[in-house]
Amino acid sequence: MKSAATAVLVFVLFPVGTVTQDRALREGKAIEQVLRNQSAAWNRHDLEGYMAGYWNSSQLTFFSGTEISSGWQATLERYRRRYQGEGREMGKLVFSDLRIELIGPASAFVRGAYTLTMSNGQTPHGIFTLIFRKFPGGWKIVHDHTSAAQ
Amino acid sequence: MKSAATAVLVFVLFPVGTVTQDRALREGKAIEQVLRNQSAAWNRHDLEGYMAGYWNSSQLTFFSGTEISSGWQATLERYRRRYQGEGREMGKLVFSDLRIELIGPASAFVRGAYTLTMSNGQTPHGIFTLIFRKFPGGWKIVHDHTSAAQ
Repeated sequence: MKSAATAVLVFVLFPVGTVTQDRALREGKAIEQVLRNQSAAWNRHDLEGYMAGYWNSSQLTFFSGTEISSGWQATLERYRRRYQGEGREMGKLVFSDLRIELIGPASAFVRGAYTLTMSNGQTPHGIFTLIFRKFPGGWKIVHDHTSAAQ
Repeated sequence: MKSAATAVLVFVLFPVGTVTQDRALREGKAIEQVLRNQSAAWNRHDLEGYMAGYWNSSQLTFFSGTEISSGWQATLERYRRRYQGEGREMGKLVFSDLRIELIGPASAFVRGAYTLTMSNGQTPHGIFTLIFRKFPGGWKIVHDHTSAAQ
């Protein structure tokens, strides 16, 4: 498996030419850093720290398979149930195959994959599409669509 | 189930304020029309017509569950196998719960749901996230992430 460090590809895709390649690369790295912060937080079992990568808004949407969570709080609670509930564990999270594309002055989307490694050796994994928006406080995920392997 | 006509919500989301609400609504309607054209094509069993909504590029990506198709041709072939193969049928397609958000001068993302109604009465369904980009020839899907109900 590739680490996030080696797997990131930053694509420049500004049809209107309003943004320089330098800026696109800088923004791509800022988005990558959000994801690195998320995996670091996850791996120290800091779910609130992980959730800091998401837009803290009732308008955040999270699609997991065909389950829809609406809002930051509902998304946090879903994570708590799945990974901090009785007999659950968070495991070790690694993102891979990240493709970050800037598609507007303050918007981007990210394709990628994740793998969790659990204490029993199981490795649940899947792929995701993220929509990022740049706020005054930095880049945040405003929509997450994740599909887990069956 | 709601029809596409009544379910569409067009959100205006331009943090940089470069686009008027009029333009955002107009672009939202243009994107909605791409989806209407797709469902109409599907329902006359015109898979190439349906595929006209997708970017005809090797860079198109299609995530279905955890299966990744790269490129327009691979995506078409996947649809052919699944819906036109031996013993398969396309069914009747309806999109619903569409939320179209413009997130850049030439980019948008769409959240929505689909239901197929098959001749045996089964209704496979799921949800999707689409990334649209505006080309000289109009809006096209450049990335599709779909999750089907199990």
